[in-house]
Amino acid sequence: MEPQKPPTFDDVASASKRLSGMAVRTPLIESGVLNAKVGGRVLIKPENLQRMGAFKFRGAYNAISRLSADQWPGGVAACSSGNHAGGVAEAARLCKMPATIVMPEDAPDIKLERTRAAGAEIITYNRHKDNREQIAADISVARGACYISPYDHPDIIAGQGTSGLELMQQAEDLELKPDCLLAPCGGGGLIAGLALAVKHLSPDIEVYAVEPEDFDDHARSLSSGERERNSVLSGSICDALLAPMPGELTFQINSKFLTGVLTVSDDEVRDAIRFAFNELKLVLEPGGAVALAALLSGHLEVKGRTVALVLSGGNIDGDQFAGILAS
Amino acid sequence: MEPQKPPTFDDVASASKRLSGMAVRTPLIESGVLNAKVGGRVLIKPENLQRMGAFKFRGAYNAISRLSADQWPGGVAACSSGNHAGGVAEAARLCKMPATIVMPEDAPDIKLERTRAAGAEIITYNRHKDNREQIAADISVARGACYISPYDHPDIIAGQGTSGLELMQQAEDLELKPDCLLAPCGGGGLIAGLALAVKHLSPDIEVYAVEPEDFDDHARSLSSGERERNSVLSGSICDALLAPMPGELTFQINSKFLTGVLTVSDDEVRDAIRFAFNELKLVLEPGGAVALAALLSGHLEVKGRTVALVLSGGNIDGDQFAGILAS
Repeated sequence: MEPQKPPTFDDVASASKRLSGMAVRTPLIESGVLNAKVGGRVLIKPENLQRMGAFKFRGAYNAISRLSADQWPGGVAACSSGNHAGGVAEAARLCKMPATIVMPEDAPDIKLERTRAAGAEIITYNRHKDNREQIAADISVARGACYISPYDHPDIIAGQGTSGLELMQQAEDLELKPDCLLAPCGGGGLIAGLALAVKHLSPDIEVYAVEPEDFDDHARSLSSGERERNSVLSGSICDALLAPMPGELTFQINSKFLTGVLTVSDDEVRDAIRFAFNELKLVLEPGGAVALAALLSGHLEVKGRTVALVLSGGNIDGDQFAGILAS
Repeated sequence: MEPQKPPTFDDVASASKRLSGMAVRTPLIESGVLNAKVGGRVLIKPENLQRMGAFKFRGAYNAISRLSADQWPGGVAACSSGNHAGGVAEAARLCKMPATIVMPEDAPDIKLERTRAAGAEIITYNRHKDNREQIAADISVARGACYISPYDHPDIIAGQGTSGLELMQQAEDLELKPDCLLAPCGGGGLIAGLALAVKHLSPDIEVYAVEPEDFDDHARSLSSGERERNSVLSGSICDALLAPMPGELTFQINSKFLTGVLTVSDDEVRDAIRFAFNELKLVLEPGGAVALAALLSGHLEVKGRTVALVLSGGNIDGDQFAGILAS
């Protein structure tokens, strides 16, 4: 899979048909406590309830289900901090193709186990020493496997966008029209797909990406107009959002559609995880909680507004979760 | 509120209209992992996502919204291990009535805090020494407050049944018809309301109540045909399910409609809470997890069947939850 042209809304709509019956149509839920706290109406799209515990299955299945197993005797290969790994492993299993995934050696156990349980072969790397994309590319060539990018491919972006399509349909069922949308951002595939979907259906909607504060590559890239690189590769609890820089394709979409980028601290993320535990009764991983953190910390004024909020994943180890509850 | 005639399906339908826009229409969700594990199709109704974190708001609002504030200058009074307390406090707040709630002194902090935050006055009692119903009755008389039973009143039972009505509608939207339903059982109000709703819409459906193993009053009562009392008043982690015996009204319904009663151990409940954390990404309290525990522990054979599963609440303190994750 080489980078191609950015996907369009029609690609999101096609992905939605492809995913029907395979991905979970996650519900749209509300919390009176959250609404009261921010003074607006928050429509929560909990992608932690998605197959494999994160939105990533959407893009992975959309991409992999289009491949011919005959053409790729080695199946698929990918590199991922964990959630894309799980999504690819599960999609490959459903499509009866082998999967080889390059994952950081410090990935949460739950993500490693879940990927292995879906039948994938895992090869670990060191975040600081190794080039994970090179490892995955070498494997692809050696095994005749199709490389599945974590974010920089039209099928991946379009697949992630199906969550936004559902969200807008579910809001419409409630006769609501979101004024703005907030979603987590690592490489930018989710927010790009969401933006494609929601801006097509509601051109005035404001779309905000949310990043961990030391991984604000999208914030700086949007300012400069160029893809900027993060100065560090680790150090945030948001293990899912540590991509080194915006994707090439995703940035073409995001630089066009994003209203802005918000950043949150690890402490704000911990607060959001505790809030989700106490008030929403949802399990969120750090990277899945950044948009909620931005909202709870008042980084965006939403008084009197209708806000769509994507919670992107819930794959967190029990000991880390317990530690956050106790902190 | 003195015990009256048992409610009917029509009362559940009326309650559903009364709750529209006030209670959360909780989604119906599925987990591929759970389906694969039990070999059936499990439709999960997560009432932990309900207002105040448990199904109890349904019955409380249905009952309290029918009261005249003029007739009850002292508002409402109730006794509750915690979730009914929260439901009554929130419903009274919305109906602009004062609420006084008698709660056990060892109730989880989250339930005490949540009830207080909704504006109720809390009076604590000792589970072993005090008669909570007598305390609440005395308060009702002294203050001119209407006593809101935790389960033994037609409006409460009908309100809880709205969850079953939604569940059947949501299953129908998926063109599915559950073969059986499992739900937690303390005083029996939830399972009675659910049974009223689902048996009316689908007379062949099997309905199972699930109890903690030392609090199997419904299991024994169904066997003997008489309301049997539990021999202990505490000692299970399922703090929400420690009612001393079946309600009078609820037993009239349950003895007619229940297919059977299943019991689960505390360890099976802990396993279910961990499963919900890891696989469903939902926070469950012990009492809210018993039906899932029964399913996961194989207490009912569901291979090839469609199972409706009610997860009734998620109000658990962080330190208890952390302890369960670590155990």
